[in-house]
Amino acid sequence: MDSLELMKVLSQPSPGKIILLVLDGLGGLPHPETGKTELETARTPNLDGLVAKGVCGLAELVGPGITPGSGAGHLALFGYDPLTFTIGRGVLEAVGIDLKLEPGDIAARGNFATIDQSGLVTDRRAGRISNEKCATLCRLIDGMVINKVKALVRPVREHRFVVVFRGSGLSAGVTDSDPQQTGVASKVVNALQPKAASLAGVANEFIARAQQTLAEQHPANTVLLRGFSQRPELPAMGEIYKLKLAAIAVYPMYRGLARLVGMEILKTGNSLEDEFATLKQNYGGYDFFFLHVKWSDSAGEDGDFERKVRVIEEFDRALPGVMELGPEVMVITGDHSTPAVLKSHSWHPVPVLLCSRWCRPDGVRQFSESACLGGGLGHFPATRIMPLAMAHALKLAKFGA
Amino acid sequence: MDSLELMKVLSQPSPGKIILLVLDGLGGLPHPETGKTELETARTPNLDGLVAKGVCGLAELVGPGITPGSGAGHLALFGYDPLTFTIGRGVLEAVGIDLKLEPGDIAARGNFATIDQSGLVTDRRAGRISNEKCATLCRLIDGMVINKVKALVRPVREHRFVVVFRGSGLSAGVTDSDPQQTGVASKVVNALQPKAASLAGVANEFIARAQQTLAEQHPANTVLLRGFSQRPELPAMGEIYKLKLAAIAVYPMYRGLARLVGMEILKTGNSLEDEFATLKQNYGGYDFFFLHVKWSDSAGEDGDFERKVRVIEEFDRALPGVMELGPEVMVITGDHSTPAVLKSHSWHPVPVLLCSRWCRPDGVRQFSESACLGGGLGHFPATRIMPLAMAHALKLAKFGA
Repeated sequence: MDSLELMKVLSQPSPGKIILLVLDGLGGLPHPETGKTELETARTPNLDGLVAKGVCGLAELVGPGITPGSGAGHLALFGYDPLTFTIGRGVLEAVGIDLKLEPGDIAARGNFATIDQSGLVTDRRAGRISNEKCATLCRLIDGMVINKVKALVRPVREHRFVVVFRGSGLSAGVTDSDPQQTGVASKVVNALQPKAASLAGVANEFIARAQQTLAEQHPANTVLLRGFSQRPELPAMGEIYKLKLAAIAVYPMYRGLARLVGMEILKTGNSLEDEFATLKQNYGGYDFFFLHVKWSDSAGEDGDFERKVRVIEEFDRALPGVMELGPEVMVITGDHSTPAVLKSHSWHPVPVLLCSRWCRPDGVRQFSESACLGGGLGHFPATRIMPLAMAHALKLAKFGA
Repeated sequence: MDSLELMKVLSQPSPGKIILLVLDGLGGLPHPETGKTELETARTPNLDGLVAKGVCGLAELVGPGITPGSGAGHLALFGYDPLTFTIGRGVLEAVGIDLKLEPGDIAARGNFATIDQSGLVTDRRAGRISNEKCATLCRLIDGMVINKVKALVRPVREHRFVVVFRGSGLSAGVTDSDPQQTGVASKVVNALQPKAASLAGVANEFIARAQQTLAEQHPANTVLLRGFSQRPELPAMGEIYKLKLAAIAVYPMYRGLARLVGMEILKTGNSLEDEFATLKQNYGGYDFFFLHVKWSDSAGEDGDFERKVRVIEEFDRALPGVMELGPEVMVITGDHSTPAVLKSHSWHPVPVLLCSRWCRPDGVRQFSESACLGGGLGHFPATRIMPLAMAHALKLAKFGA
């Protein structure tokens, strides 16, 4: 029996609520001057107070040495082994703009890009055109029908869009056209399996026609596609855990991920304050809340150590409001590390704090990477977080007679 | 997707180099008088300096409580699960004398031994005959052809030799003839599966003819065979990790193991100094170096606590020369423990140190078994060392979108 099947067998309703607070890219690396990570630098009296009563650990999202993408990291936090359940780039973009995928749809991530007269890519992002321009261009190339396959094109942000190929008998096993570098031509989309040949043909024709249409739209005079993928079949969290689940996230991608696993999406604003207010307003209506804080990751990606510190401190200040709600279990962690010194996601394990009146406290007194190393949860795979949260909320029956 | 497949998908070339330094049998147990292990007793200022900046842990090579043979221990360090990829005794002996095995070859470990007039084994090692005598006797029984199967016999050391059965359709699933005790007759080689029947017949005929040939060679008047095995099919490390790999080892068995996983073998001398000089001379030509230090294990096997301490100290003094090369990642560990107080390999986990500018330092300040217990890598399977080394060398792409 795998872990999800076990959860489905053992889970049972109970009155307590679970709150999962995800600080995107929470884990860090030491600042070269101070030797302290972002989390170790931040003043976090509320987190440290919770740590003293809770139990901590360090979680690996995918596996040792593996740097998780956002989809993989969140799936692990939601209890799904990200090596078993994979989400393609195209699907991730589509769910990120609330684009409903039908069974059999193939989604790809698109970039408007610039090519020169000899056909070489000179800018993979077309100078990061405005959202408005992106929407206009998407309308120009939306709705093509190629071999009975319809291509839906929807804007994301700046140069980014999603294309969904809708037709029968399509298979996603094709290569990208995006060369991932400049100074070279875009690539031909190739089928990796015979059954994907028809999609490859359609995609190449789509690119050719789009390029004709965009000829006069410099710098957005071509499109690059990647991450052709189909929606994964994820068993719904509500059925596995017998919970009514809600997601609160400012950024569409995280709402999309939550929707893929069956969470209800709560309407919220654009700030951390808005998100916490949404949580408070809806607290009575659900058993489980996933609340996503994006800005820690953005700061890490920008290499802005101090801004990441400030995001963590702002989060800390908002915590008492969450605690007042009195959840049976609260988990605070990240979906991966994003050390400012690396300016990217990384493979380093993320600190985890689980608070509940039923946890066995460890000696940890500060919420930090180094302190969590000695925590009672140890060094563990992140897919264990959901079973641990369920157990501490007294929502799992005994196993075996 | 298993770990090797994942590595194959994610690995990508990058300029940084990885050095894996293996102190054979590194792990120890406390000296009864001092309460300190060999590693804790040794003065190792350079290792301790590296530890302060690196990340440590304790690795299990095969599994809890399992004492690794040299082949299994090294396979784990190279990233192969030793429970999935097994190397038979015969193959290990063959690779240990640089005997190239062809596909389909079956290798067995042989002992020259003594039987009395009634055919009972009186000495399984024929009084440990000299290397010269062994070579002479091997020539006497080399080259038989039995049912179109050729038997190649090559000396190893003292009473030990290798026999390789070369022919078509051979299968290694047969029992040993070596009874592993004296006072009994040697055993008939039996097929464990129908397809191994032909090898069993050939092996029994080989033993009978060898015994006739050796009749007048008392005490070496018979042969005992064990560990019939075929070269395992190991996916090449170069293909998995996209690295150009080199091995530096004084002892042939370790060169043989490195060759099995596709490393190039560098010519070196007979001392630690020679090995480090070889590393330095060839540093520009490869991405990955495996350097094997045998003497820590030999001292442990001899129960010579002090000598093992001295080997570790000698290694420590040579370290600055390696650091000067500026590897992106350096890993220092063992292939198993060989506590002098046990005079043998043991199941105790081995200390691991990983140095890189991208590691998240832990609080460890000394390279020792007890200090590594609190290290940031935790208590982990040794097959993770390669993924972790690859990650810290920035040679792994992000997983998932």
